[in-house]
Amino acid sequence: MTDTSTAPAASAPTHRSEHAPVRDDVARARPVAPHGAHRGVGIEEVRLTGGFWRDLQETNARATLEHCLEWMERLGWVANFDRVAAGTTGPDRPGWQFSDSEVYKLLEALAWEYGRSGDEAVNATFEALVDRVAAAQDDDGYLNTCFGHPGRPERYGDLSSGHELYCTGHLLQAAVARLRTVGHDRFVEVARRAADHVCREFGVDGRDGICGHPEIEVGLAELGRALGEPRYTEQARLFVERRGRGTLAPIALLGPSYFQDDVPVREADVWRGHAVRALYLAAGAVDVAIDTADDELLAAVERQWTRSVERRTYLTGGMGSRHQDEGFGDDWELPADRAYCETCAGVASVMVSWRLLLATGDVRYADLMERTFYNVVATSPRSDGRAFFYANPLQQREPGADVRPDAVNPRAEGGVRAPWFDVSCCPTNVARTLASWQAYAATVSSGGSGEHAGDVVSLVQHASADLRVALDGGEELGLSVRTAYPADGLVRVEVTDAPDRPVTLRLRVPHWADGATLTVPGGSGPEGAAPGWAEVRRTFAPGDVVVLELPTGPRFTWPDPRVDALRGTVAVERGPLVLCLESVDLPDGVALEDVRVDPSAAPRPHDDGALVRARVVTPPAPEPGRPPFSGAPPVTPAAPSTIELPLVPYHRWAERGPSTMRVFVPTT
Amino acid sequence: MTDTSTAPAASAPTHRSEHAPVRDDVARARPVAPHGAHRGVGIEEVRLTGGFWRDLQETNARATLEHCLEWMERLGWVANFDRVAAGTTGPDRPGWQFSDSEVYKLLEALAWEYGRSGDEAVNATFEALVDRVAAAQDDDGYLNTCFGHPGRPERYGDLSSGHELYCTGHLLQAAVARLRTVGHDRFVEVARRAADHVCREFGVDGRDGICGHPEIEVGLAELGRALGEPRYTEQARLFVERRGRGTLAPIALLGPSYFQDDVPVREADVWRGHAVRALYLAAGAVDVAIDTADDELLAAVERQWTRSVERRTYLTGGMGSRHQDEGFGDDWELPADRAYCETCAGVASVMVSWRLLLATGDVRYADLMERTFYNVVATSPRSDGRAFFYANPLQQREPGADVRPDAVNPRAEGGVRAPWFDVSCCPTNVARTLASWQAYAATVSSGGSGEHAGDVVSLVQHASADLRVALDGGEELGLSVRTAYPADGLVRVEVTDAPDRPVTLRLRVPHWADGATLTVPGGSGPEGAAPGWAEVRRTFAPGDVVVLELPTGPRFTWPDPRVDALRGTVAVERGPLVLCLESVDLPDGVALEDVRVDPSAAPRPHDDGALVRARVVTPPAPEPGRPPFSGAPPVTPAAPSTIELPLVPYHRWAERGPSTMRVFVPTT
Repeated sequence: MTDTSTAPAASAPTHRSEHAPVRDDVARARPVAPHGAHRGVGIEEVRLTGGFWRDLQETNARATLEHCLEWMERLGWVANFDRVAAGTTGPDRPGWQFSDSEVYKLLEALAWEYGRSGDEAVNATFEALVDRVAAAQDDDGYLNTCFGHPGRPERYGDLSSGHELYCTGHLLQAAVARLRTVGHDRFVEVARRAADHVCREFGVDGRDGICGHPEIEVGLAELGRALGEPRYTEQARLFVERRGRGTLAPIALLGPSYFQDDVPVREADVWRGHAVRALYLAAGAVDVAIDTADDELLAAVERQWTRSVERRTYLTGGMGSRHQDEGFGDDWELPADRAYCETCAGVASVMVSWRLLLATGDVRYADLMERTFYNVVATSPRSDGRAFFYANPLQQREPGADVRPDAVNPRAEGGVRAPWFDVSCCPTNVARTLASWQAYAATVSSGGSGEHAGDVVSLVQHASADLRVALDGGEELGLSVRTAYPADGLVRVEVTDAPDRPVTLRLRVPHWADGATLTVPGGSGPEGAAPGWAEVRRTFAPGDVVVLELPTGPRFTWPDPRVDALRGTVAVERGPLVLCLESVDLPDGVALEDVRVDPSAAPRPHDDGALVRARVVTPPAPEPGRPPFSGAPPVTPAAPSTIELPLVPYHRWAERGPSTMRVFVPTT
Repeated sequence: MTDTSTAPAASAPTHRSEHAPVRDDVARARPVAPHGAHRGVGIEEVRLTGGFWRDLQETNARATLEHCLEWMERLGWVANFDRVAAGTTGPDRPGWQFSDSEVYKLLEALAWEYGRSGDEAVNATFEALVDRVAAAQDDDGYLNTCFGHPGRPERYGDLSSGHELYCTGHLLQAAVARLRTVGHDRFVEVARRAADHVCREFGVDGRDGICGHPEIEVGLAELGRALGEPRYTEQARLFVERRGRGTLAPIALLGPSYFQDDVPVREADVWRGHAVRALYLAAGAVDVAIDTADDELLAAVERQWTRSVERRTYLTGGMGSRHQDEGFGDDWELPADRAYCETCAGVASVMVSWRLLLATGDVRYADLMERTFYNVVATSPRSDGRAFFYANPLQQREPGADVRPDAVNPRAEGGVRAPWFDVSCCPTNVARTLASWQAYAATVSSGGSGEHAGDVVSLVQHASADLRVALDGGEELGLSVRTAYPADGLVRVEVTDAPDRPVTLRLRVPHWADGATLTVPGGSGPEGAAPGWAEVRRTFAPGDVVVLELPTGPRFTWPDPRVDALRGTVAVERGPLVLCLESVDLPDGVALEDVRVDPSAAPRPHDDGALVRARVVTPPAPEPGRPPFSGAPPVTPAAPSTIELPLVPYHRWAERGPSTMRVFVPTT
């Protein structure tokens, strides 16, 4: 593990983008292979040079990876592999049935981090973990510490809850990360044998079963691409097609929609049930749709995305309205206080939207990714990278407890980031996402026809970075992007290398950016750029500069009137950031529940948040001794006090001690 | 079981109130003994002659009791007792660990029903069940079919989840019903031996434990009163005092507040965690406070009631805002759509308020009981008494499924009453409450001093009934109450028998009844009666008539502005009934989510509901291809259509096929 006392400069990477780009797909370091017309850049093609995401990546590298390993050692989740290898596991095995998956997600994070930084200490940690994992693999490729060994339940005896294929799916994703950063090593071989085992066990002649928690589908599909193994793609297709037919044994109190076994994927209109399950499944379905040219299946997931994002998604991009099943609610059921918005559902939503973006190029998928990155993924980790939110509600009614640094917390306790959870899927999910973040920053497509023939390079997320993007003819487009985004909306792109032929450069103008402008080389100055893709097509030369200016001043956002829980409230956003009002910023004696924002005064910029004009109203107290159902109409005090209050970025709330919080604030 | 083909007249009771009243407390047929200054009437002192509650009682007697028994036979919950007796139980025992309690609650319901009606068929069913239950009792008094026998887990090995003492508590409550209607028979003896076993096992020298689900406390306290056994009261006190010290092993994902083991009862300020647990515990704490003259403990429960009813209780009287733990939410966390409002929590709330009413005489407890009776307890059973709501949300966004008459339903599925549930606590809880309903209709107190010396008879709930209330000196007050309440607010009380000395008659004027009048014998006509107790003190003579007139026209009720989920909405009530808007009453093409009530037009009476003026607004649809976060302020169409819509009593919703529904409707 990286020594945390090492300064960032000391672990300076021998960065792979400095080497000649490797053109074959296996070696391109990205989570998802070319997909439809677009491919994502590899992490070796983009080097973040500073700013919001680079800071998060550094904290992830310096603190979070080590933190996760420490906790999993402490709780015996890594030692579970040793015990299987030694034949000493048994009924006292610690951890949930899915704890292996946390080790695999950490391996994936370590693989991306080594690919990103070249830090040999990270690689040593990876290899040491692989020693222990590989030793636990059975001769036939089965690899799981919870099932199938003396004193443990039999293999695949509980597909509804066992999570065996779910764990294998994460193993395969970790192997994809290793394969695309280092190559086909012994860990990839472990994954290959595990995948072969799954194909033998669950193929057309095998068990007609699926896993209660999707994940194996994306794992198989991507490993199939990375290894050029069509059997894996076919197995992923089988799992997708078998779902929705009610074959999973019910879990007490939860219906089949909990694990999306109620309706076949291609027939469903909306996401429902457990959000992470629904989204991992959707991601796998897109992979299968692309690799089997199944337009109907692709259209089904697009249809589900459209309705679910319109009616079942929070302003933060968060998904999951219910604690009961960590699941989606009905249309318009979006309570702020009981918003679940699991961090992992944010990661999973990014996985789905990224695949749809690659498949279609539609900018709305990139917009949702940005919303989710800044307001869910970035919200989870504490600024020191050693505590996390599992649920991400948009309102906190009672201050969270103090942090218990050595305690395993209930997962959905609100108001305080915890070092670890009883179900601790989120920390490692954040870690693997941050370690590979720049792979989601840009896409490339080639081919096309007419005036769009040739290469199109799209800057999907705005961040300071040096890019060397491989083009179709073996050339590269070199770009130097500099920006203080999201604090400021100026994005300056300088061409550092370009082929001697026309290339299309596209910059994303987010849907909220009314009044954006684009300045192109040799142009007459800034020109209006509508939300969508702002395009520049030309034969670029080194030194050419393109400037995108996005308006990032604070703005009001009103909820859809059909969202009952938010009626009569307004939120404030600033660029891609959702802001919130936190009780630590209120004057003494003012309760958050009594604050009403005056929507007639536009929010003003303030630090990295905003100032809003607000009134403090004291609701009429019920008469003593009478029940609270007397039901008089609400009244506004005759002479309310008007104050100005600061809003802060939601992703940084609860960093200044226990507080109450709201994103949507009632209006006067 | 009563033959369902028998007309009500054929099972006419040999009504016990026709006999001379039995003065000793053991024989008085009521759930709770004299309590503070007040005692509840026995069911032999009140005979319902018709109307709302009499109808529900008759349906309960004719259908629900038989229905519950059929399901418990079908599922093997009764046969579990036979298997213990035969030594053939084992790992395949069907039912949850608490299924015994359903048999006991049915026994309690049968006991009250026999006491009410004298129907020998009911008694025969009771005796046949007792044969089977009694045979399963161990020699040392332990009685449980889930634990402590070959092939089953050991006794008391899982106090957090085992529910053993919970089941015993319901056994004791059933025995109290039998003791007070028939006398000390072999079933009472079974309960006495079980209670003795509990005292030996959990007394000061025994296990220092409590049950994860309170209920043993009320059972022990009341059986102690009924049998004059102070050891039981002392044991109840021990259980109350031991709670709140974190001794229960945690249940996965739930903290100690789930079973109120976080804060000692006398220190808590508000109800929290699982609502039924919190309320059964509170009821037991009041019993203990009264029997041990513990004013601090009584004040604690009153304080909890006050805050919880003000901030954590629905307009219906329903309690429980969260599905996750079937529990209370934070203050003001009262979502309409995800309101849990478990039927059993309604029953438990009535148990608490009744004990506080007897302890204090404060009318607000009676008001909440009425609200809960009409809008939670009466809402659960379908009109045929053979299907039930478990959860009682105040908004249904998607129509409920069709009823599956032979299916065991998940407990909290919304929108449709189900014949039985996987966890089926509610049907038998409704049954025992309805069978004893008239015991909650009136109270008597005596003593007092000065102008209030002597007997005070209080009519707590308004229903047509003949009363013969035993007074302090061995005399009776006979009353004939006739009313069409709640459809109409006229309550006519004629004195049929009275002692030759002053008696105070009190009639409850509910808190919502602005403009109520009282007409007294020899008075000059109707006089204003403020909410609270309307009193008439005089030496009554047979033929004297007192008339209370309550305004039961429809009225708007606005939510407290701090309830975020209800901001910008209004409800309509009529007398004690909460009304609702159901989609089956909407014109074709109008969606419930698009209806806005015009609060400038008062609701008009309509059948047993109301008509409101409303507008239909179609919210602006998001632009195609753009995410729904564009956040324009909501607009009202320039020329909305105005229509008049009928509201119906909430307790009868979902009786006309699947529909959507809301109690609180957005306003224009």
